[in-house]
Amino acid sequence: MTEDSKKQQSHQRKMEKLKDSVDATIASADVERGVSILLTGNGKGKSSSAFGMVMRALGYDFRVGVVQFIKGEQLSGEEIYVRDKCPEVTFYQMGTGFTWDTQDRSGDIEAAVRTWEVAAKMLSDPSYHLVVLDELTYMLSFKYLDQAMVMAALSGRPDNQSVVVTGRGGGSALIEWADTVSELKEVKHAYNAGIMARRGVDF
Amino acid sequence: MTEDSKKQQSHQRKMEKLKDSVDATIASADVERGVSILLTGNGKGKSSSAFGMVMRALGYDFRVGVVQFIKGEQLSGEEIYVRDKCPEVTFYQMGTGFTWDTQDRSGDIEAAVRTWEVAAKMLSDPSYHLVVLDELTYMLSFKYLDQAMVMAALSGRPDNQSVVVTGRGGGSALIEWADTVSELKEVKHAYNAGIMARRGVDF
Repeated sequence: MTEDSKKQQSHQRKMEKLKDSVDATIASADVERGVSILLTGNGKGKSSSAFGMVMRALGYDFRVGVVQFIKGEQLSGEEIYVRDKCPEVTFYQMGTGFTWDTQDRSGDIEAAVRTWEVAAKMLSDPSYHLVVLDELTYMLSFKYLDQAMVMAALSGRPDNQSVVVTGRGGGSALIEWADTVSELKEVKHAYNAGIMARRGVDF
Repeated sequence: MTEDSKKQQSHQRKMEKLKDSVDATIASADVERGVSILLTGNGKGKSSSAFGMVMRALGYDFRVGVVQFIKGEQLSGEEIYVRDKCPEVTFYQMGTGFTWDTQDRSGDIEAAVRTWEVAAKMLSDPSYHLVVLDELTYMLSFKYLDQAMVMAALSGRPDNQSVVVTGRGGGSALIEWADTVSELKEVKHAYNAGIMARRGVDF
């Protein structure tokens, strides 16, 4: 047998095994309903991943809701895009600026509660296929929102609705609740090497 | 002092500290150029994060290139969206089906090389603000593409161009090269609880 055909044979054996394992995992999943996803950790990519899922849903013309907690007054690229190009997306921003800029706890709480009302409405409306609650975790860790109230709305949402929650931390209730949890670990970050945040990539 | 004003004062102190630290990090970054990002690990969200950055770039009307290695013959939501709604995006898929389905090493290598040629062209064209090389890591770990050739093209790209590489693994050369590396750790995944992949969220 030539070296090449040996390689091909060994490759085929490995790939057969991988295919069996992938097929088995897929076959064993048989519950069809909306999923809940938590994207947490200190690494880059949580909000952009949520917006990638927005694009995914838009590919099938599904209705999408996006509520952003904390985010600043300046729109970033994906926010401009969603606002200008995506009428299927209901988009709401707390828009009070970063909480570490305002330094006003009671004002922030009022804004958080007002923003939560928008989210809660989406979470009870089955016409939304996907709801993104960007940076919601901070509202819980700062105790701006009542955790029991938030968890009840997340858990009580329509069967067919998927939800993505992003933000560092998040606590055990969110991790317990979510079907899928990815932790984004910062292995390294450009700004630690003195490289500025890049328009159209970082914001 | 009332309980509330104590809370407000302590909150303000904490937020001042946080603001100082955020401001200092931003101020110390003064190099402006395209960034390189590696999204790796076994958790959900790598490709969707890359597509979120595509949306971010589109918000500023930047030109974007997306090359997908490995991906199957069936388009997923974000791919349908990009193909149908985003003329600013040059989109290319290897399109040979999953390598564990084809089980044909030499055919896969040919397809990988053909696909790489498309990527290499983008990496030498300064009109692309952002280039996404989705699942490129597997081409290196399967040794379908020569690592030195790939790294030379990634490193030699135009100064203003940003690149996002996704996929599990990736090896030390990619980690060394990238300005920002996020590792997506799977804390839990819906399919392990028997929940099917969801259209418009998972694909």
